[in-house]
Amino acid sequence: MILEQILREKGSEVYSVAESATLKEAAELLDARKVGAMVILGESGAIIGVFSERDLVRAIARMGAAALKSTVADSMSRQVVTARLGDTIEQTMDRMTDRRIRHLPVVEGGRLAGVISIGDLVKWRIAEASAEVAAIRSYIQP
Amino acid sequence: MILEQILREKGSEVYSVAESATLKEAAELLDARKVGAMVILGESGAIIGVFSERDLVRAIARMGAAALKSTVADSMSRQVVTARLGDTIEQTMDRMTDRRIRHLPVVEGGRLAGVISIGDLVKWRIAEASAEVAAIRSYIQP
Repeated sequence: MILEQILREKGSEVYSVAESATLKEAAELLDARKVGAMVILGESGAIIGVFSERDLVRAIARMGAAALKSTVADSMSRQVVTARLGDTIEQTMDRMTDRRIRHLPVVEGGRLAGVISIGDLVKWRIAEASAEVAAIRSYIQP
Repeated sequence: MILEQILREKGSEVYSVAESATLKEAAELLDARKVGAMVILGESGAIIGVFSERDLVRAIARMGAAALKSTVADSMSRQVVTARLGDTIEQTMDRMTDRRIRHLPVVEGGRLAGVISIGDLVKWRIAEASAEVAAIRSYIQP
């Protein structure tokens, strides 16, 4: 099972935020969209950063109220770990637990194809494992 | 596989915060401990709330800078979903994806026994599924 299949089912809607937005505005967007992270796109459409709930927590811990007037560009993670459409669920899960990240942009040909969350992978991995066990069981007792 | 086994391996360290702490202090604790949520314990040692990164985002979205001087008691989730030591991984995973929560306090006899994250469950469920498939395979081809 590869990421392309998950995105096909889940849809490729991606929530982005401008790097010039303030953290107050970014918090409003995260809250309204009920998501944990948003991507920041450059002029060419390439990903230049990711801004997550955790980035907001860190900025507030370090700057206090001043953080809310600072911009997304100041706090976003610029070292963005990405996946490709052909990556497997297991591969991707390993990378996410390794790096302790919960959202992974999927990029193909330099363009953003969607975002995969750890929750998406859990759901699909369970379905995949159950199907595998069922197939082997029916092979033993047809 | 039940939660008790995960906690035995992982340890039962639990990060708590006082309900009188300000959100600025709570952000500093989340950041320093590198966790996504903390529990709030009442005088009897029972859980009276959970405060997560998402609660902080919501408070800032709605109150702005004033949120940072408000207390954890004002923004914590009081409807705490908990698990028991004897609950299975699958049961717990279903509840977490259902309710869209990432941290679940494990309670036994009215006392907090530990906290399980969706990441813990993922790691263990993968190990469990792999072991199951391996066992069935070795049954087919001993």
